[in-house]
Amino acid sequence: MNAEIVSIGDELLIGQVINTNQAYIAERLNSVGVNVVRMSTVGDRVAEILGVFEEAWKRAQVTVVTGGLGPTHDDVTRAAVCEFFQTDLIMDEKALEHIQRRFEARGLPVTPNNRDQAMVPRGCRVIQNIEGTAPGYFFEREDRFMAVVPGVPYEMKGMMERFIVPFFAERGTGIVIRHKTLRTTGIAESILAERLGDVSALFGGRQGMTLAYLPSPLGVRLRITARSRSSSEAEESIAVAERKIRERAEKYIYGQDEEELEEVVGRMLAERGLTIAVAESCTGGIISDRLTDVSGSSRYFERGFITYSNESKTAELGVPAGLLAEHGAVSKEVAQAMAKGARERAKTDIGLSTTGIAGPTGGTPEKPVGLVWIGYSDHSQTLALRFNFVDERRRIKERASQAALELVRRALLKIG
Amino acid sequence: MNAEIVSIGDELLIGQVINTNQAYIAERLNSVGVNVVRMSTVGDRVAEILGVFEEAWKRAQVTVVTGGLGPTHDDVTRAAVCEFFQTDLIMDEKALEHIQRRFEARGLPVTPNNRDQAMVPRGCRVIQNIEGTAPGYFFEREDRFMAVVPGVPYEMKGMMERFIVPFFAERGTGIVIRHKTLRTTGIAESILAERLGDVSALFGGRQGMTLAYLPSPLGVRLRITARSRSSSEAEESIAVAERKIRERAEKYIYGQDEEELEEVVGRMLAERGLTIAVAESCTGGIISDRLTDVSGSSRYFERGFITYSNESKTAELGVPAGLLAEHGAVSKEVAQAMAKGARERAKTDIGLSTTGIAGPTGGTPEKPVGLVWIGYSDHSQTLALRFNFVDERRRIKERASQAALELVRRALLKIG
Repeated sequence: MNAEIVSIGDELLIGQVINTNQAYIAERLNSVGVNVVRMSTVGDRVAEILGVFEEAWKRAQVTVVTGGLGPTHDDVTRAAVCEFFQTDLIMDEKALEHIQRRFEARGLPVTPNNRDQAMVPRGCRVIQNIEGTAPGYFFEREDRFMAVVPGVPYEMKGMMERFIVPFFAERGTGIVIRHKTLRTTGIAESILAERLGDVSALFGGRQGMTLAYLPSPLGVRLRITARSRSSSEAEESIAVAERKIRERAEKYIYGQDEEELEEVVGRMLAERGLTIAVAESCTGGIISDRLTDVSGSSRYFERGFITYSNESKTAELGVPAGLLAEHGAVSKEVAQAMAKGARERAKTDIGLSTTGIAGPTGGTPEKPVGLVWIGYSDHSQTLALRFNFVDERRRIKERASQAALELVRRALLKIG
Repeated sequence: MNAEIVSIGDELLIGQVINTNQAYIAERLNSVGVNVVRMSTVGDRVAEILGVFEEAWKRAQVTVVTGGLGPTHDDVTRAAVCEFFQTDLIMDEKALEHIQRRFEARGLPVTPNNRDQAMVPRGCRVIQNIEGTAPGYFFEREDRFMAVVPGVPYEMKGMMERFIVPFFAERGTGIVIRHKTLRTTGIAESILAERLGDVSALFGGRQGMTLAYLPSPLGVRLRITARSRSSSEAEESIAVAERKIRERAEKYIYGQDEEELEEVVGRMLAERGLTIAVAESCTGGIISDRLTDVSGSSRYFERGFITYSNESKTAELGVPAGLLAEHGAVSKEVAQAMAKGARERAKTDIGLSTTGIAGPTGGTPEKPVGLVWIGYSDHSQTLALRFNFVDERRRIKERASQAALELVRRALLKIG
């Protein structure tokens, strides 16, 4: 079953508001086998709305409409809905009662504007709005469906969860859609694609499968999608593809679905009962910030040092001034001394360090902007790796933080 | 001049990714008088893409397309563009050279996949991609325009700012639109709205003006918009409104347009020749991370301590163990001792500290999740302020970092 999502609102067209509703609705429809094939956004004008209604209704079995149901003059969605279905308005007593109760609870009078919101298109099923005042509308006409809900995200979500999602789940769409995302880092999209090779081979000849590459500065995510007649079949198809992808992408996969690298590393540290201290120069605190984004991180994150100046590297981490003078702050030797110093100073199992040139200034031909040394030290080894991040300042910091966390993950797993 | 925005990508249709590109592009086109009338999103299939191209091209003079230009099999936008304009691919030497340089800089080989990205539709103007590898395409046919750019937000933004926005700005659309944003923090949207009062009074009767409240966890931004026949008139209208808003919002305004609070504070520190050290507990490094996001921050940011454990507060900052035992780590006394300790330890002019409960666990009735003490110390005073942030973990960290930086700004300006 295919669906289109239509958002209505001038605030979207001028870019004042980022549309988060479409992704939410799409994800929820998907979960019950309703496949979103198009999303559209138009302004608060009846002619534009009618145009997009006609297109969507023709192309897809389900149309979900959000926005333009408010009490003010610029909300015209209801008028467009009436015109589209050639109907007029009637009072919905249940909606009116709900509106009156809401206003009474706040000690406010019910204005004509508010009463008017209880007028709904004749011939629709009314979707009550627990979170707000404007009810939603649901139309079923010859096995085609249109749901119209407010644009306020929590009101829309209430109607999705209580009415629209259960409706399509119960009705059954015959098609089950399952997704799984594998997260990689430290490998370019094109090189990953060569490693994985022919996509159909990954699927072992199964139909209804797709693989998407989703690149970001922190790595490439691989999203496997299976469309099938049964959830067991879809899950089996995903499992087959996942196994083949893992064989080929190997160590580059650090996690799956919504898992961030700091959660993966944090879980590994917690499971092994290990503690970590971080000494950051060019990354300026982002590694510690990420590690402490994980609830419960105080079990393994002991402390962090942001040693921006040379003096602080010596005072806090015991990096010899001579080493700084001889090799410069951005060097393998200093990265190693920082990692070891952090570990010894904080009495942790692991020390992690960064020193580099985040730019945009401060680069030289020998040490260009984006050069970062990442140091790692534990009880048995101290090492440092060199990276070149070709990017702007913020993203150099982000990429370096990802490479540093990945270095810890690989060291714990003893993979290169 | 009307425009449509077309986003391409299955990840959008399944709701895995929130589309932030459409709002960005809309806002930027608006700023040069190009009016967005529709946004559409379709999947990575040539037939669907061609369908939406035909509709958009018919309805609007400008079509901006994002997404599906990557190097892998699921990226089919380029093929659809070639079919739409009935053209084939040719090698763009400049794009190829850029791709080769990027890979060389990272010490990586150029794969056939990467080389292929330099193949562009014959007959388009190539928009070079400084931030990535896939070039963009720009078509002009009988006073209609289509720009095709990658979906990766920073690559898209680079092409918007360097090519598309200047192109339409130069071409001229008859209407001048100017925006100015004033940034506030530490005041709720509703209280700010009461302070500002009647909007039309702020505009002094001028037409074509709007004021938008844009709330976020870090504060409320006020965006003033003027639409006018001339840029001087639009700018004059903005200046009048800005003056009135500043009179009423007073100290709550810390900056304007894209200026972040860390830039404002950084500039103040640099101008005054002052240095700062930061001691973070519950914020876990985000304050230092933000301060060091500013290029040149090494002039004033000396070092940071992330003292997560009690031992680290004592060892690194000299917070007496007895003080921790008596008042607990989350207390006014410890916040003050941390700020003073950081300042003395790092020999800086200012010390800044945070200690609180980021949650979701660890709260008690007396010290609930969201309680944060922020400490400040300079040569003449040491103080701490109490905050209660009702939010989830990451946003508690963000809000606390904003409140901490704002405390420095107000201390430097000697405002309460």
